[in-house]
Amino acid sequence: MRQTRRNNGQRPGDMLKRIMGKEQAQELGFGKNITAEGRLMNPDGTFNVERDPPGPFANTYFWLVSMSWLRFMALTFVSFGLINSLFALVYLSVGIENFNGARPEKEFFSNFSQMFFFSSQTLTTVGYGHVSPSNFTASLIASFESFLGLLTFALISGLLYSRFSLQRAKLVFSEKILVSPYKDGKGIMFRIANGRKSELIDTEVRAMFALNQMDESGNAYRKFYSLKLEIDKIMFFSLSWTLVHAITEDSPMYGLTQEDFLQMNGEIMVLVKATEEANHQTVHARRSYTAEELVWDAKFLPVMGKTANGIPRVLTNKIGDYAPLS
Amino acid sequence: MRQTRRNNGQRPGDMLKRIMGKEQAQELGFGKNITAEGRLMNPDGTFNVERDPPGPFANTYFWLVSMSWLRFMALTFVSFGLINSLFALVYLSVGIENFNGARPEKEFFSNFSQMFFFSSQTLTTVGYGHVSPSNFTASLIASFESFLGLLTFALISGLLYSRFSLQRAKLVFSEKILVSPYKDGKGIMFRIANGRKSELIDTEVRAMFALNQMDESGNAYRKFYSLKLEIDKIMFFSLSWTLVHAITEDSPMYGLTQEDFLQMNGEIMVLVKATEEANHQTVHARRSYTAEELVWDAKFLPVMGKTANGIPRVLTNKIGDYAPLS
Amino acid sequence: MRQTRRNNGQRPGDMLKRIMGKEQAQELGFGKNITAEGRLMNPDGTFNVERDPPGPFANTYFWLVSMSWLRFMALTFVSFGLINSLFALVYLSVGIENFNGARPEKEFFSNFSQMFFFSSQTLTTVGYGHVSPSNFTASLIASFESFLGLLTFALISGLLYSRFSLQRAKLVFSEKILVSPYKDGKGIMFRIANGRKSELIDTEVRAMFALNQMDESGNAYRKFYSLKLEIDKIMFFSLSWTLVHAITEDSPMYGLTQEDFLQMNGEIMVLVKATEEANHQTVHARRSYTAEELVWDAKFLPVMGKTANGIPRVLTNKIGDYAPLS
Amino acid sequence: MRQTRRNNGQRPGDMLKRIMGKEQAQELGFGKNITAEGRLMNPDGTFNVERDPPGPFANTYFWLVSMSWLRFMALTFVSFGLINSLFALVYLSVGIENFNGARPEKEFFSNFSQMFFFSSQTLTTVGYGHVSPSNFTASLIASFESFLGLLTFALISGLLYSRFSLQRAKLVFSEKILVSPYKDGKGIMFRIANGRKSELIDTEVRAMFALNQMDESGNAYRKFYSLKLEIDKIMFFSLSWTLVHAITEDSPMYGLTQEDFLQMNGEIMVLVKATEEANHQTVHARRSYTAEELVWDAKFLPVMGKTANGIPRVLTNKIGDYAPLS
Repeated sequence: MRQTRRNNGQRPGDMLKRIMGKEQAQELGFGKNITAEGRLMNPDGTFNVERDPPGPFANTYFWLVSMSWLRFMALTFVSFGLINSLFALVYLSVGIENFNGARPEKEFFSNFSQMFFFSSQTLTTVGYGHVSPSNFTASLIASFESFLGLLTFALISGLLYSRFSLQRAKLVFSEKILVSPYKDGKGIMFRIANGRKSELIDTEVRAMFALNQMDESGNAYRKFYSLKLEIDKIMFFSLSWTLVHAITEDSPMYGLTQEDFLQMNGEIMVLVKATEEANHQTVHARRSYTAEELVWDAKFLPVMGKTANGIPRVLTNKIGDYAPLS
Repeated sequence: MRQTRRNNGQRPGDMLKRIMGKEQAQELGFGKNITAEGRLMNPDGTFNVERDPPGPFANTYFWLVSMSWLRFMALTFVSFGLINSLFALVYLSVGIENFNGARPEKEFFSNFSQMFFFSSQTLTTVGYGHVSPSNFTASLIASFESFLGLLTFALISGLLYSRFSLQRAKLVFSEKILVSPYKDGKGIMFRIANGRKSELIDTEVRAMFALNQMDESGNAYRKFYSLKLEIDKIMFFSLSWTLVHAITEDSPMYGLTQEDFLQMNGEIMVLVKATEEANHQTVHARRSYTAEELVWDAKFLPVMGKTANGIPRVLTNKIGDYAPLS
Repeated sequence: MRQTRRNNGQRPGDMLKRIMGKEQAQELGFGKNITAEGRLMNPDGTFNVERDPPGPFANTYFWLVSMSWLRFMALTFVSFGLINSLFALVYLSVGIENFNGARPEKEFFSNFSQMFFFSSQTLTTVGYGHVSPSNFTASLIASFESFLGLLTFALISGLLYSRFSLQRAKLVFSEKILVSPYKDGKGIMFRIANGRKSELIDTEVRAMFALNQMDESGNAYRKFYSLKLEIDKIMFFSLSWTLVHAITEDSPMYGLTQEDFLQMNGEIMVLVKATEEANHQTVHARRSYTAEELVWDAKFLPVMGKTANGIPRVLTNKIGDYAPLS
Repeated sequence: MRQTRRNNGQRPGDMLKRIMGKEQAQELGFGKNITAEGRLMNPDGTFNVERDPPGPFANTYFWLVSMSWLRFMALTFVSFGLINSLFALVYLSVGIENFNGARPEKEFFSNFSQMFFFSSQTLTTVGYGHVSPSNFTASLIASFESFLGLLTFALISGLLYSRFSLQRAKLVFSEKILVSPYKDGKGIMFRIANGRKSELIDTEVRAMFALNQMDESGNAYRKFYSLKLEIDKIMFFSLSWTLVHAITEDSPMYGLTQEDFLQMNGEIMVLVKATEEANHQTVHARRSYTAEELVWDAKFLPVMGKTANGIPRVLTNKIGDYAPLS
């Protein structure tokens, strides 16, 4: 389907010529060596790029603070089990008879579980004392384990705090990006709202446009343009915000049809930067829209409602609602 | 009362025309779809806007770090009681006879309280050991509880630190905003002081003005303007600071009377941004003044005193003191 | 002495006129209502200004993180003793006989010390268990104390981390500020060095000059000027840095003699702002020089040496060394 | 070898004259008093400069957070052993007979080890209780030790969190800097990539050039210049980035040969500044290249590959790969 257009196409050629005249926005940070298939940015704002880490631990911290809460908790819990199992085996090798209060039995599992629980009481420093080490070696290992336990929980404290404080801004984006009449021509529009109660201050939005082009030798490569937004910075962002790029002659989108977008694998990338008041930090959010997420001749439906007390209310779940233009 | 003026009024119409000629300051972040009743910003700087959260946990962190210290402590304490009660019930279902040192009794409450205290000793890792788990299931649950206990307190450590470090600047604002003679005309004035001992550096103030207007179809909507301040940034803010907006012809307030302000539901919003030295962070404070908080023809009384040693002293409790102009 | 000059003085009058012609730098943040005695900034950079706190706890955090380490440790230790004493009294009122392993004795102090140590074992969650609560009330209070203990140590963790990370840049300033020949005229010079191993990046210096003047009614008040520095921003600050203000005709210091400085209670205030690499934060340091700390016709001695390996070495203890010009 | 050139050299003289005409970039922060041997910046970006600390503890925090993880862990572990040994000796001096459950023996080491393990159980608050203090003095010291233990682990928590959050950006630099044909002349090029999975936003690069020169009296000193980069700021840095300085007539490198670089001890210093998304902080990375690391007439080999799924992949281990130009 997409191929047909390219084959019969006079317009794509003209268009290509026109667009190639425009200088690529090099300051975006994308070079020429990126090819044409797939999207560069995933819808959640992560880049569709792999990077070989330069060393085995280069990304440990990032991995630990950016995994989901469920996975983090599961990881912590499993580590707790593994460390205790390991120490249980060490204590067994020292000999269960070197622990006051432990009852040596024939069954391996019974002895193992007694040592496992002793280990857990040592690692968490709960130390009931109904079991306690009686000889030198057992005491030494238990001493080391309690030391290790405190270090580990200090580390978990640090990670928990990191996870808390380093959250991304939770911005809600419209799922689609609309092409609608704007001023004398057309414009593309998307809508965002703050998904947290904490206020965002000095919010800034930048948008980019990527599409495939051919170089002289006929190889496809990806080109990147900045998209000028009508308003790109606001002081307060307590309501919703509709962002507009006017498709004037200066726009890299000028003259492109829906089919052109699909064929050239068009992608619109959005970067939002703001100061989050709750933690006084600059936060970033990103979103990417592919050609399939571009809706032609539609307009957004109202997103503002009212509470029972007459207070304005942002209906964030309606942020993406739109209707076709008649 | 307010109605009468509108009915007999030639002036409001003229004024509306004049103000509507001025372009709304769109970069403030308020759109057209906000209607006219009530104030948009509460006196404490929070916005009078509701936002539906996009998910159940989107605001948990914000909620935990922004609640009052009293509520935070109460919440922690109640959670401690509930978790211990829950574990007490679990231990009872395992059987109190599986705990060394526990005394099974007929009364439910006596057994419950023994298990509640065992739970508390496990959760806090105090672990006296006069009660200790004796069989596998009891040990396993106690092991899990001590693990949970450490996680919980690690989490509380993180929250406490967040609460400490993420405090807002404590700015003291004058309760009223004054309209007084300034240069050849009039100006509006408000006064602020730093309520903390920690110094504020590079303090910046921005002011906005909101009022109701009618569109062509006679519907009221709210319009927003920036207010230019005579000095809007200072290097040190160790004394008090009186901020002044001169009501010249360029001002959106030019020609408005006290009645106009009331009738049009005028609101002045102030945003202060500074670097707090104690935590090297950019902090924000906001305040809103409604038409009722605007005092005409008054001046601020002195706010600077002296200590016994002759050192200048900012009397922050007098920051709002003013006297009518004779 | 200072008086005589004013009395016989034609020059001070002239000078006053000349200086008063220059506009005060209002963006520094000092108003007119500061009078003339004493210095405004202490040598260590704190302001010589009192501010009434708006509430009893407005400065608790600032106080806790900015006190010296010795005082902080002493405060923590004394609090530990007081909390344990308090709980010891509560346990005694419950009755020492309600504690397993405690030995009730006739002497108050013996009972008190047993309960004090039980309390300490509970608060720190060490919980040996040779003493443990036996009835409901004792168990309940001990449970609450262990909860409180964990909260308290979570809080201390947070404060310790705050204290660590929120340290000021440790800049070493020359004790004196020199007036020396510079280009075709004179200049004032002071020297700074970074007292930490951590690098400072994008270091910026601003200087101000304050002196007393008379208004029309003959009242002394303090006026503030910005001082232009020859170079006021450097990318790396790994060596020492000599800052220079050229006393040209544009300078508020032009034409002032040493006696003028003393008589008018001149004060030079310096603000250094930099990004500290170790904690990626913007840090500030301040220093003030009074007229007494101004040395005329002197030059700084070299501050750079070499290590045994030929590596350049900043001798920070010589940062203030100067010699008179012959 | 290097000498010969200087001796026979007409060109160096000319060149010196030409370069000395260019004003040194004083805003870099390097003065005249740095001499000519060795490099100023080490390859890892630390400065080759010593600074005397102004006090014994001025650099403790920096030292603790910047040492390697291995050393940090070893230090913690050794401190744990030393503190316990110290307290063991104190407990022995109080008398081992004042501890319930301890078995006084003739051998010193046996008593010492019992007290060492009691100390470790107290410091970590594990407190099994099979050994517990029985008289006043022993209880008092144990109480103090448990207090100290909690403080210490609170401190370690804070340090661990500091170490986690304050990591430098892990940038991978090409090992060599290339001189290749660029536009109509030549340019120097180096290549960087982000070594972490966390994205870098608004990445900025600055480059400097240092070389030795003679002053009028024939003494060598070091001069510093800014190097203008073709593109010096990009929005996203998810791919690799080749930085280029064009050696035009305005460049301080214009006309220099490879031998000139060696002879004048040329050094190119690079500073990268970016916002790291994972911790919302501004991070810095530095790298220095000496004349020996400058490769003439070479070009970089491709650094971008593809994963099995066709996703672009940055091969960070090939960041420095280059080939000579034919």
